[in-house]
Amino acid sequence: MVRLQGVVRLGQPRWLLPAASAALNETAGQMELLRSCYTATARNYQTSAKSEASASAWSSWPQQRVIQLLGAGATLLAAAMLSPAPATAKKEIAILPGSKPPAPAMSTSKIHPPAEKPQPVVPAEEPAAPAASPSKDLRDDKGRPIYTREEVAKHKTPRDRIWVTYKEGVYDITEFVEMHPGGLSKIMLAAGGSVEPFWALYQQHRKPEVLGILEPYRIGTLEGGAAAAASAAAAAAVDPYASDPARHPSFIPRSERPYNGETPGTLLAASPITPNEIFFVRNHLPVPHVDAASYKLKVEGEGIRSLELSLEELKSRFRKHTVTATIQCSGNRRNEMSLVRHVKGLSWDQGAIGTAVWGGVRLRDVLKVGRLSEDDMHVRHIQFEGYDKDPASEEIYGASIPLHKALSLYDDVLLAYEMNGQPLSADHGAPLRVVVPGVTGARSVKWLRRIVPSSSESPSHWQQRDYKAFNPSVDWDSVEWGSAPALQEPPVTSAICEPAPGTSVSLADGEITLRGYAWSGGGRGIIRVDVSADGGKSWTAAKLLPPAPGAPPHGSYSGAWAWTLWEVSSAAAEGTSSPTLELVCKAVDSSYNNQPDSIGPIWNLRGIVNNAWHRVNVKLES
Amino acid sequence: MVRLQGVVRLGQPRWLLPAASAALNETAGQMELLRSCYTATARNYQTSAKSEASASAWSSWPQQRVIQLLGAGATLLAAAMLSPAPATAKKEIAILPGSKPPAPAMSTSKIHPPAEKPQPVVPAEEPAAPAASPSKDLRDDKGRPIYTREEVAKHKTPRDRIWVTYKEGVYDITEFVEMHPGGLSKIMLAAGGSVEPFWALYQQHRKPEVLGILEPYRIGTLEGGAAAAASAAAAAAVDPYASDPARHPSFIPRSERPYNGETPGTLLAASPITPNEIFFVRNHLPVPHVDAASYKLKVEGEGIRSLELSLEELKSRFRKHTVTATIQCSGNRRNEMSLVRHVKGLSWDQGAIGTAVWGGVRLRDVLKVGRLSEDDMHVRHIQFEGYDKDPASEEIYGASIPLHKALSLYDDVLLAYEMNGQPLSADHGAPLRVVVPGVTGARSVKWLRRIVPSSSESPSHWQQRDYKAFNPSVDWDSVEWGSAPALQEPPVTSAICEPAPGTSVSLADGEITLRGYAWSGGGRGIIRVDVSADGGKSWTAAKLLPPAPGAPPHGSYSGAWAWTLWEVSSAAAEGTSSPTLELVCKAVDSSYNNQPDSIGPIWNLRGIVNNAWHRVNVKLES
Repeated sequence: MVRLQGVVRLGQPRWLLPAASAALNETAGQMELLRSCYTATARNYQTSAKSEASASAWSSWPQQRVIQLLGAGATLLAAAMLSPAPATAKKEIAILPGSKPPAPAMSTSKIHPPAEKPQPVVPAEEPAAPAASPSKDLRDDKGRPIYTREEVAKHKTPRDRIWVTYKEGVYDITEFVEMHPGGLSKIMLAAGGSVEPFWALYQQHRKPEVLGILEPYRIGTLEGGAAAAASAAAAAAVDPYASDPARHPSFIPRSERPYNGETPGTLLAASPITPNEIFFVRNHLPVPHVDAASYKLKVEGEGIRSLELSLEELKSRFRKHTVTATIQCSGNRRNEMSLVRHVKGLSWDQGAIGTAVWGGVRLRDVLKVGRLSEDDMHVRHIQFEGYDKDPASEEIYGASIPLHKALSLYDDVLLAYEMNGQPLSADHGAPLRVVVPGVTGARSVKWLRRIVPSSSESPSHWQQRDYKAFNPSVDWDSVEWGSAPALQEPPVTSAICEPAPGTSVSLADGEITLRGYAWSGGGRGIIRVDVSADGGKSWTAAKLLPPAPGAPPHGSYSGAWAWTLWEVSSAAAEGTSSPTLELVCKAVDSSYNNQPDSIGPIWNLRGIVNNAWHRVNVKLES
Repeated sequence: MVRLQGVVRLGQPRWLLPAASAALNETAGQMELLRSCYTATARNYQTSAKSEASASAWSSWPQQRVIQLLGAGATLLAAAMLSPAPATAKKEIAILPGSKPPAPAMSTSKIHPPAEKPQPVVPAEEPAAPAASPSKDLRDDKGRPIYTREEVAKHKTPRDRIWVTYKEGVYDITEFVEMHPGGLSKIMLAAGGSVEPFWALYQQHRKPEVLGILEPYRIGTLEGGAAAAASAAAAAAVDPYASDPARHPSFIPRSERPYNGETPGTLLAASPITPNEIFFVRNHLPVPHVDAASYKLKVEGEGIRSLELSLEELKSRFRKHTVTATIQCSGNRRNEMSLVRHVKGLSWDQGAIGTAVWGGVRLRDVLKVGRLSEDDMHVRHIQFEGYDKDPASEEIYGASIPLHKALSLYDDVLLAYEMNGQPLSADHGAPLRVVVPGVTGARSVKWLRRIVPSSSESPSHWQQRDYKAFNPSVDWDSVEWGSAPALQEPPVTSAICEPAPGTSVSLADGEITLRGYAWSGGGRGIIRVDVSADGGKSWTAAKLLPPAPGAPPHGSYSGAWAWTLWEVSSAAAEGTSSPTLELVCKAVDSSYNNQPDSIGPIWNLRGIVNNAWHRVNVKLES
C-alpha cells in the first residue's frame, strides 16, 4: 500500500481508488516504474498543450483496465495457480503464456571465456557456454553444498527441480512456484538464475516478509569469491565484451557477443512505456564505457562552427525537452521472414521494439548554436559517430539522417541523456545518445562521440551496406547496395503480443482476448488496428488503448512518435470446427498506409522492414 | 522542324539531334507542351540546387527513349498502319491500344438540357444525352447536307464510317485514318467529334497543308447559328452547369454534372508532365467563374492579422515559387474496389491523377505576413474555402490541412496561379487555387476564396463526412465518420498504364513492355517498382524513368511531390501455356511502405485510397 499511496500523491491517476488497492498491490513494483515515467513527463505537462491532452487521456484510463494491464500475467494465470501442479513438460508449456521457451538465465558474473578471435561485424548467434564441472563435494561454513551458477542453471523445470539464487543463497522453490502471488509465469522467468533482477523490477519484494518466505527453501550456497573476481579481470584484459553490463534475465537473447536481446511479448503489451530494465538491447559492437564527467560532444563539419560540449554544458546551456518515442530495430520480426527463405541477421521475434520518455536537448538547438543554416544547400545530411568500435577493424559505428529531419521544428530529434527519468544505462548509450523519433533504431546512435554536418550520408557500413531492402529477386550474389536508399522512416507495422503462438486457448466463454502494439515511422499516428480470427477473411477493429504519456492523440498526422497499444476480444471463433485458429492483425497509419498481406513479395536479403500482417496460430480447447 | 528548333533554342534537351528530327516531327505538338513546362521550370533552375540535379537528369534522357515516349502510340502502331484496314469491330479493338472504349466525343456547345432539379452534392454518373432528331433534309448554301453534332457522334467506327468536324465542316475520314502520320490511335480519339481540341494539343496541325489534306473528305456542314446561341443563353439562366467550360475530348468522363473526367492510361504514361488540356478534372460542384481582375483573396481567422490580397498583389509582393507536384483524387482506382463489393462514388480507373509544374506563392509566406506564429498552440489547422457552391444547399466547398503542413519550410504548400506556365484554367481553379503537395487532391481547394487559420478542421462535408476510410466491416448503416481522421497524405500506389486490360499481346519477340506510374503521399519518393507477369509469384524491378523537371532524385526522403514513371520489358511469359497473363505492379516508397496485396482487406465504403497491387490481364497471341 505504501507505494500505491506514493503514486496517488502525484495526483495523476484518479482511478486509484481504495477498493482497487488490494488487487494492485501485487503489481506495485510495475507502478513504481510507470511513476518514474510520470515524473519525467510531468515537466512536459507544464509547457506543452499536446501533452495536456494525453495526460488527460491517461488519467481517464478505466480502473478495471489498469488492473488488467498492470496485473498482466498474474490475472491471466490465477486459474493456473489453483489447478494441480503440471506433471509433464508438455503440459507446462500449455500453461505458461507465450510459446517461447523461458529465457536462459543470464549470468550476472562478468566472467566470459576469451574470444577465439575478434568478433566479426555481422553478429552471429552463439550457443550457450558449456556448463562448468559440478562442485558438489564443496560445502559452506554451515555444511551446505556449494553450487556453481552453471549447476543452478540446469534447474529450470519441475522435473529437474526449480532453483533460484538470491545473493549467495541457492533455493529450490519447486514447491513454492504455484503459490507465487505474482503468478507462475513471472516467477518462472527467474528459474535457474537469480531472482534479484526481477525483485528490482517488481519492488514489492523489498520487504523482510519476502525473505522470510524464501529462506526455508535454501538448499545451498553459490560458489564465488576472490578467485572468480581475479578471473573476470583477466578475461576483461583480452575480451572486448568482458566489460559488457549485466542484462535483465527476462530478455530473450538473440546474440551474446555483441549482446542483443528482446523483450518477451507479454511484457511488451503490459505497458505503454517500456521499463528501462527490459527495453530491448541492440548492440552492434562491444559496449563502450564513457565517463560522463569528462565526456565531450564534438560538433564539426561542413557549414558549421565547431563546438565541444560537456554533458554539463548540454544540460545547462540548452532547454530540456522530453519526447515519448518508440525505437524499433530494422530487423524486428525477421524470424518470420526467414520462414519464407533464410535471411542473414539476428532472428528477432516481435520484441525488438520499445517505448520510452527520452529527455535531453534538441539536435536542432545545438546545430543552431553552431550556426548551421537551413539555406546552406550544400549540407544535406547530419552524420553521427558513436564511441563503439569494431575490435578487429576499428571501424566506428556511424549513421546519418537527412538535414531536414535534423532541423525541422516538428521532428523532435533529441540528444538524449535520460530514459524514463533515469540517466542512460551503458546498454542504451550512456552518457549521451541520439534519439531520432519515427526513424529506424540504427540511426539513433548510442554513446555519441561526434556530430558531422555533411553533403553526404554517413560512410559507415551500417548506412551504406546494411539496413536497405531490395526486390525479392535480389540476393547476396546480385545485390547493389547503392541502388536503394538507407532505411530511415520504417513502414507501418503491428504485432500480436498475446496470445503467443501455440498457446492453448479455451473457448469456454466464446471469446479470445488479443493484445499487441502498432507503430509507423515518420510520426504517422495509428488510426486503426484490424484483427481477424479467421486468417484474414473477416476483420474487427481493435480498441486502441490511450496514448502513452506525452504522446499526441491517436491518428495524429505528425509527431506520433510512440506506438499504440491495442486489445480486442474476438468472438469470431464461434462455430469453428478447426483445432487451430489463425489470428491476424494489421494496422493503418494516418497516411492510410496498410501492411502488406504476405511476406514473400517483401522478402529481402537482410530481412528488414518485415511489416506483413502478423499471424499467430493458437490451439483451441473445447 | 520549326517547332523542334524552337525547343532546341531553349538550350535544354541536348538529345535533339538532327537525326532524330524526322521521327520527332509527328510529335512536335507534345514537345511544345513540354516546352512550356520547361519555361516555367527554368526560373527554378536559377535558384534551386535540387532543380539543377533533375534538370541534368532530364537532359540526359537517351535520344531513343525520347522518341519512344513522345511518339507514344505512334511508334507502337506503325505496324498497324501497314496492315490491311480492320474489317470488324472486334478486330479493331485488338488493334487499338487500351481496352477502354474511345471516349465519347464531348460537345463543345454549351447547350445542355435544363436540370430536372438542383444537383445533389454526391455526384452521380449520368447517361449521355439522347441524340437529337436527324436533319438530313437540310442543305447548306453549297447544297451539302447539314448535320447535328448528335448525328456526327454516331459515326465513330469503320462500320458506321468515321466522321469528324472542323469548324463548320463535317468530314468522313474513314479512308484517311490509317494514313494519319500521328498514328491510328490518336486520330480515333476525335472520331464522332471535333478535331480542334486535338489540333490545339498537337500543334503540327496548324499548317495550311493539313487543311488541304482534310478538305477533300468534306461531306457536309454542321448545324448551328443564332437560334442555338439563344438556346444556350436560356439554358444558362436555369442550369448551374450550363457555363461549365468545354473539356478535351480525350477525357474519359465519369460524371457530367458536376463534370469529372480522367486521362486515358496511354496518355498518362507518355510524359512526366501532364499537359493541362488532359489533366484530370475533379469537380464537386458547378465551375464558378471568378474574375481575375477584381479577385481578392481573404485571409482571416484565429491568431492572424486579416488580409485581403488581389492577384496582382500576390504576384508582386511575394516571391514566386514553382513546385512539380502530382495531384491524385482520393478515389483513383475506385472501380477495382467496386468489383469486390459496390462502393459509392465516381468509378475512376487509374487516370484520376496528373503531374504539373505549379507556379505561385507559398502559403507559408502569406501566413507569415499575417503574423501567424508557429508558437500559437491554439491554431492547429488552416482551412480553405472555395468559390464553388452547392446550387441546392448553398454549401461552399471547403477543406483544411494541419498547421505544420502549412508552415513547414519543407512542405512547399502553394497558392498557385499557374499550371505548367499557363494561367489556371476554369476547370483547374482560376484564378487561384491551393496546391498541397503530397496530399490528396481534395485538400488542394480550387477557386480559392478564403484562408482561415483555426483550432479545428474545416467543418465542410468533404472534410468531416467524406474522404475517410474504415474497416471493411463498416458500411453505410454503421459508419461513424468521427472515428477516422480525414485523409491527408495518401499511401504509396502505382498503376500499369500500358498495356491496357484485355489487350492482345504478341509474344513473337518474347517480351512485353509495361509502362506506368508510381507515387506516394507526404513527399516520400519512389525507390522501387516491382512488376510481375505471373500474378505476383516472381518479381522484376522496373526501370525508373528520370524524375520530372523540378523534382528531386528518386528515393528522396522528402520533397518528392511528383510521381515516378517507370517501364519494364518482361520476358516472364516465356513458356506459359495460359491464354492470358496477369500483369501486376507494386511500388515501394522511401519509408519502405509497400502496397497491400489485395483489395478485400482494405475495402472501404467510400472506395478511397485503393492502393492494392494493380493487376492487368492481357491476352496472349502466339
